[in-house]
Amino acid sequence: MIIILRPDATKKEIKHVVDRIKKMGLKPWISKGVERSIIGVIGTEDAIRLEPLEAFPGVEKVLPILKPYKLVSRDFRKESTVIDLGSGVKIGGEEIVVMAGPCSVEKEELLIDIARKVKAAGAKVLRGGAFKPRTSPYSFQGLGKEGLKYLKAAKDETGLLIVTELVDLRDLDLVEKYADIIQIGTRNMQNFGLLKEVGRSKKPVLLKRGMSNTIKEFLMSAEYILSEGNFNVMLCERGIRTFEDATRFTLDISAVPITKNLSHLPCLVDPSHATGKWDLVAPCAKAAVAAGSDGLIIEVHPNPEEAISDGAQSLYPERFAELMRDLRKVAEAVGRGIPQA
Amino acid sequence: MIIILRPDATKKEIKHVVDRIKKMGLKPWISKGVERSIIGVIGTEDAIRLEPLEAFPGVEKVLPILKPYKLVSRDFRKESTVIDLGSGVKIGGEEIVVMAGPCSVEKEELLIDIARKVKAAGAKVLRGGAFKPRTSPYSFQGLGKEGLKYLKAAKDETGLLIVTELVDLRDLDLVEKYADIIQIGTRNMQNFGLLKEVGRSKKPVLLKRGMSNTIKEFLMSAEYILSEGNFNVMLCERGIRTFEDATRFTLDISAVPITKNLSHLPCLVDPSHATGKWDLVAPCAKAAVAAGSDGLIIEVHPNPEEAISDGAQSLYPERFAELMRDLRKVAEAVGRGIPQA
Amino acid sequence: MIIILRPDATKKEIKHVVDRIKKMGLKPWISKGVERSIIGVIGTEDAIRLEPLEAFPGVEKVLPILKPYKLVSRDFRKESTVIDLGSGVKIGGEEIVVMAGPCSVEKEELLIDIARKVKAAGAKVLRGGAFKPRTSPYSFQGLGKEGLKYLKAAKDETGLLIVTELVDLRDLDLVEKYADIIQIGTRNMQNFGLLKEVGRSKKPVLLKRGMSNTIKEFLMSAEYILSEGNFNVMLCERGIRTFEDATRFTLDISAVPITKNLSHLPCLVDPSHATGKWDLVAPCAKAAVAAGSDGLIIEVHPNPEEAISDGAQSLYPERFAELMRDLRKVAEAVGRGIPQA
Amino acid sequence: MIIILRPDATKKEIKHVVDRIKKMGLKPWISKGVERSIIGVIGTEDAIRLEPLEAFPGVEKVLPILKPYKLVSRDFRKESTVIDLGSGVKIGGEEIVVMAGPCSVEKEELLIDIARKVKAAGAKVLRGGAFKPRTSPYSFQGLGKEGLKYLKAAKDETGLLIVTELVDLRDLDLVEKYADIIQIGTRNMQNFGLLKEVGRSKKPVLLKRGMSNTIKEFLMSAEYILSEGNFNVMLCERGIRTFEDATRFTLDISAVPITKNLSHLPCLVDPSHATGKWDLVAPCAKAAVAAGSDGLIIEVHPNPEEAISDGAQSLYPERFAELMRDLRKVAEAVGRGIPQA
Repeated sequence: MIIILRPDATKKEIKHVVDRIKKMGLKPWISKGVERSIIGVIGTEDAIRLEPLEAFPGVEKVLPILKPYKLVSRDFRKESTVIDLGSGVKIGGEEIVVMAGPCSVEKEELLIDIARKVKAAGAKVLRGGAFKPRTSPYSFQGLGKEGLKYLKAAKDETGLLIVTELVDLRDLDLVEKYADIIQIGTRNMQNFGLLKEVGRSKKPVLLKRGMSNTIKEFLMSAEYILSEGNFNVMLCERGIRTFEDATRFTLDISAVPITKNLSHLPCLVDPSHATGKWDLVAPCAKAAVAAGSDGLIIEVHPNPEEAISDGAQSLYPERFAELMRDLRKVAEAVGRGIPQA
Repeated sequence: MIIILRPDATKKEIKHVVDRIKKMGLKPWISKGVERSIIGVIGTEDAIRLEPLEAFPGVEKVLPILKPYKLVSRDFRKESTVIDLGSGVKIGGEEIVVMAGPCSVEKEELLIDIARKVKAAGAKVLRGGAFKPRTSPYSFQGLGKEGLKYLKAAKDETGLLIVTELVDLRDLDLVEKYADIIQIGTRNMQNFGLLKEVGRSKKPVLLKRGMSNTIKEFLMSAEYILSEGNFNVMLCERGIRTFEDATRFTLDISAVPITKNLSHLPCLVDPSHATGKWDLVAPCAKAAVAAGSDGLIIEVHPNPEEAISDGAQSLYPERFAELMRDLRKVAEAVGRGIPQA
Repeated sequence: MIIILRPDATKKEIKHVVDRIKKMGLKPWISKGVERSIIGVIGTEDAIRLEPLEAFPGVEKVLPILKPYKLVSRDFRKESTVIDLGSGVKIGGEEIVVMAGPCSVEKEELLIDIARKVKAAGAKVLRGGAFKPRTSPYSFQGLGKEGLKYLKAAKDETGLLIVTELVDLRDLDLVEKYADIIQIGTRNMQNFGLLKEVGRSKKPVLLKRGMSNTIKEFLMSAEYILSEGNFNVMLCERGIRTFEDATRFTLDISAVPITKNLSHLPCLVDPSHATGKWDLVAPCAKAAVAAGSDGLIIEVHPNPEEAISDGAQSLYPERFAELMRDLRKVAEAVGRGIPQA
Repeated sequence: MIIILRPDATKKEIKHVVDRIKKMGLKPWISKGVERSIIGVIGTEDAIRLEPLEAFPGVEKVLPILKPYKLVSRDFRKESTVIDLGSGVKIGGEEIVVMAGPCSVEKEELLIDIARKVKAAGAKVLRGGAFKPRTSPYSFQGLGKEGLKYLKAAKDETGLLIVTELVDLRDLDLVEKYADIIQIGTRNMQNFGLLKEVGRSKKPVLLKRGMSNTIKEFLMSAEYILSEGNFNVMLCERGIRTFEDATRFTLDISAVPITKNLSHLPCLVDPSHATGKWDLVAPCAKAAVAAGSDGLIIEVHPNPEEAISDGAQSLYPERFAELMRDLRKVAEAVGRGIPQA
C-alpha cells in the first residue's frame, strides 16, 4: 500500500500515520520527495484495509497495490478451473459450452420443444427462468415452482442440464433440487446474502456481472462464493450500462480476456441480454468465442412474438442452429471446439 | 403506445400486428407516411406490455407513451406526500429533515456520543449501519443485532429517530423492531423480494437509488413498495456511476427536481456516499437543499480515522454543526427551514 | 414525428401546435387517447426539426421517427460501399484490410523497419502519427511535416499505403500530399469545420468514433463528410468511455454489426486504443473480425519501451505476425480473408 | 511516480528499469515486499512521462503521484484568480456573474430585446452563438459574422459584455474583434490547436468541459491555454454524458468544489445545456450557486417555440428575472452576492 501525503503534511502528521502502521505490526518506509513524501507499507494489506487512512490528517490519497481478491485469482491457482457440470459436460477446458433456451419458462410442451431443438443444434444446457426479477411489479414474475418442474421434465426428456436463476434465498432448496447450475442474475451480483448462501451449496454457480459493476467488483462477488467453499463458479459477462442507446447494454468484450487473465474461473458471455436485439446476437456470440470465452448463454424461442419476456432478443431455433454451425468454425479457428449434439 | 414499422413492412405484417392489438381489446389506428407507417394504440398499455411487439415481423421499434409507474406518480396524487416519521418529525413538507451518524455502528458509547452531537446540531434522525453490504467478503460486515441494540440505546438517550439498512429479508422483523425508518441500500434497489417485504411493513422506507439505475427504474422500485401497500417511501439520490474518477460516484443533482416533478414522494440526498470525500460533503449538501431536496443523510464520526468504514467521507461533529448553520441559511433562501435542535 | 401532449393540454394548445405544422406544409393527424392525445406528422421531418416543438405549451415530448442521416444510410445505398484505397487495396469487400504501425512517427529508419515487418506479416497500410493530439501541452506533439516525409519514405520503400491523422485544418494540403488515407481522430469527431474540409478532399477518410459519442452521432459526423461530396469514408470503432477502469476505454464490439446494418460504409476496429494494453489487443482483434469488421488498425513497435507514446498498447512485430496468422483463420471462419503479403 | 512490479519480475528486469530511471537523472528507490517490489522515483516526473514505463518487462502498473498540470493548479497560485472581464465586471471574487441570452443569435431586434431584459434582471454578460457546432450538417449553423455584428449592436445598446463561441480557429480575429469573452465549446475542449490559439489571445476565455472528459482532462485543456500566456480562463461545467436519459446530460455539481479546490481559476455552471429542460434550469442554477460557483450561463429566449436551436431549454425573460431574484437569496446565504442591474 502506498500512502501519498499532502505537500503540506507536517512531521507530526507523518509520525502519526507511521505509528499507526507500526502498531498494526506492519513495516512502513518513508520516501521524501521534493514536493511531497510517500509512505509505503510492507505486509498483509488486509489488516490495513480496516483503517480509513484517507481520513488521517496530512494524507492525500491511498493507493492499494495488492489485489483485493485471493481465491478467484490466478495467483492463487495457476491452471484454469474446469468445472464438471454433470452428464460429462465440462466447462473451462478445450470445449466451448453453449447454454440456450427461452428467457422465461412458459408452458411445458413449448419448453420441451425448445429443449429438443437446442439440443439437436449442440447446446448442452437448457436455460429458462422460473423466477424472474422484473423492473415493474406489474410484469410477469415467473411461474416459480411450476416452472422448475417444467425444466425438470425437459431435462428428463432430453438429457440437457438445467441452468435457472435464483432470486430469493428462501428458494435455494427448491432451485437446488431442480437445477444443475444456479444462476445469480445481474441485479443480484452484490446481493451478498444470496452469494453466501450459494457459496454453501454444492451446485455450480453461474454468476452474471452486475450491469454497472467493474471487473474488480465482479471478481470480489465471485470471491464471496468461493470463500464459503464453493469453487465451481462461472463468470458471465452480460453487458454493462453506458451512454450508448442503440443497444440495451454494451457488451464489454474485453472482459473476457481480462477475467481469464486475472482469474482461473471459466468465463461465459450472454450476447442476448447484452444487446437486447436478436440480429446482434450472432455477431456478438462469434466475437465472444473469438475473444476466448469458455461458453455462451443464448435466448432461443420458437415464436418470439409470443414470448412472455424479452422476445426481441430471442433467436428462432433455426437461426440458433445456423449460428451453432458458424460458431463451430470460429471455435476451431481459435483452437477450441463445440461438439455436435 | 406507438409502433413504428419498417419501411419494407408488408400489408400482411401490418395486419398481423393490428389483429393482435384488436384481440387484446385495444384500439389501433394506422397512419401511413411517405417512408413508413405507424400504428398507434389506444387503451391500457399494461395489456400490451406483455406482448413483445418488437419481435413481430415488420416492426422496427415500439415507443411507450404512458409512464410505467402509477402509484408513485404525481398523476396519481397531485399533492406532495408528507410522511410522519414519528416523534413529530415530518418529511416532505416545509421543513428539511437531516439524518446523520456514522457509516457503521461500532461501539455503544461512541454511538451515543455522536447521537448527542448531531442532535444538538439539529439532526432529527440518527443513521448507522448494523448490517453492512461490503464489496469484499473479508471486510467488516456489521455488528448485526448488537448494533441494532446500540441504536436503540442511542434513541432512548436522545430521542432521535433511527434509520438503518436492511440487507437480508430474514432480518426484517429484527430491523422493524429497532428502526423507525428502514433503509434499502443502493445495491438492493432491484432486490425485488426485499422491496416486496418492506412493502408489507408499516415502517417508513428510505429507498436509495441504484448506482447505475435510471430515475425511471428508481421510481419503478418505489412502485414495488407502494404496490404492496406501504406508501411511506422516501427516495434518496446517492450518486451514480460515471467515467469521472475524482469522486466515488457522481451526485446527480437534477434527480432532485426530476423526482419531485414526477412523483409525490419526498426526496433526500446523501452527499457523503455520492462524493466519498468529506470536503465535498458541505458544498453538495448545500446544493441539494438549494435544488429542492426534502432531506439529507450525512455521515458524521468524531474520529474518522478510527471509523471502521468510510472514514474518508465522514464529517467531524464540529464541521457537521457548522454545516447545519450554513444549511439553515440556504434552506431559508429557498423558502424552507431547518429547525434548531 | 410523434408529438406527445401533456395530459392537461388544452384544446387551444393543441390547435396551436397543429396550426404550426400545417403552416409548414406538413400534415398532422391527431389521436385522442384516454389519458392523453398524440399528434403525428407526415412529411419531411427536416422542416420540422427547425422547430423546437418541445417548447410549445401542452407538449410533453417529441419523438423523431426518421433517421437524421441520409447519405450514410443503407436506406440510401443498399449495397456495401467498397473503397479503393490505391495500389489495388480495397476495403468493404470480402478481404479484411489491416493497418499497422507505431503510434507516433519517430525516426525514419525505425519507421521503415516497422513498415517492412508489418508488410511481411500482411498489413496493407502503414499507420503513424505525425501530428499528435495530446492531453498535456507538455507531451510530445509529433514531428509534423518531418514525420510526413518519413511516412512517404516508408511508402516508397515498401509500397504500403499511408494513413495518418489530421488535427488542424490548416495542415490539410500537407497531409493530403503525403497520405493515402486521412484519419480524423476521436477528439475531432465533432470538429465540424475539419469534417467539412475533408469532405471536400478527394482522399479516403478514416473517421474514428468519439470516445463518448453515440453511434447515431458517429453516423451524423460521417454524414458531414459525405454531404460535402466525399463518399470514401471508413468508420472506426475505438472504444468508448465507461465506468470500467480495467481498460483505457471499453471496446463497443456491437458497434460493428450496428454500423454495418445502418450504413453502407466500411467499418474498422482499433483494438490498441480501445484497450490500452497490448495483451488485450489480440483477443479483441479476433473478436472484431468475428463480429464482421472490414478492417483493423493496430499499433506495432519493435521496442515499445522506447516508444514516445502509447508503448504499453503496442505489439512487438513478432507478436503482430503471429496475430495475423491467427486472424487469417478467424477471417476464414466467417467467410472473409486476409491475403498474405 | 510509483512503479509496481509484477510478482515474477526478475532481478535483471528490475535493474533494467532502475538503470533507465538513473539515466534520466532521477533517483529511484526500491522497496521489496513479500509478494512484489515497488520502485519509487524522486524528481521531476515530466522527464519520466516520456517513457512508457508500462511497456518495460516486469512492470505491472505505473502510478503517477504529481498532478500533470501546473499553471492552473492551486499549488502554483494559492489565491483565487479574479478576472476583469471589462466594464467593471469581475469574476472569481465575491460577486457571482450571470451570463444570459439566446442559444443562437437570430435577429438583431430580438437580440437587443433579450439583452435589455436580461440586463434589467441583473445579467452582466450577453451570451449568443454566431457560429454553432451542430450534430447534423443539415441544421442551422449560425449567422456567422452577421451574428457577431448583432451582438455588437446589443452591446452598444445595453452595455452588456459579450460572450460567444469560437469553433474554427480561422475565425479568431473576427471573434476577438466583437467578443469580450471567447467561449470554447464542449466539443472543442480537446481541439488543442484551437486552445493554443486562444492561449495567445488577450481576451478572457470561457472553457466548457467536454461532455465526456474527466476533471483532470478539463484542467489539462485549461493548462494548454495558460501555457501559451493567457491566464484569464474560466472553467465551465455543463453536464457530462451518463446512462441517465431523463436529462440531456448529467450536471456534475461536485465538479464545482473540486475545480475550486484544485485550481485558482473561476468556475461557472451552465444549467441550460446540462439539463436540456427549462424546468430544471432554476433548481440546478440555485444548486450551482450553493455549491460555490462563481458564475452562471443561462439560455433566455422571449419565444422559445420560435428559437432556432435549443428552445426546450430556454427560459422566458420573466422566468429568468424571477430566477435572478431567487438566486440573489441563495448567493447571500452562502456569503456571495449578485448585484442588481
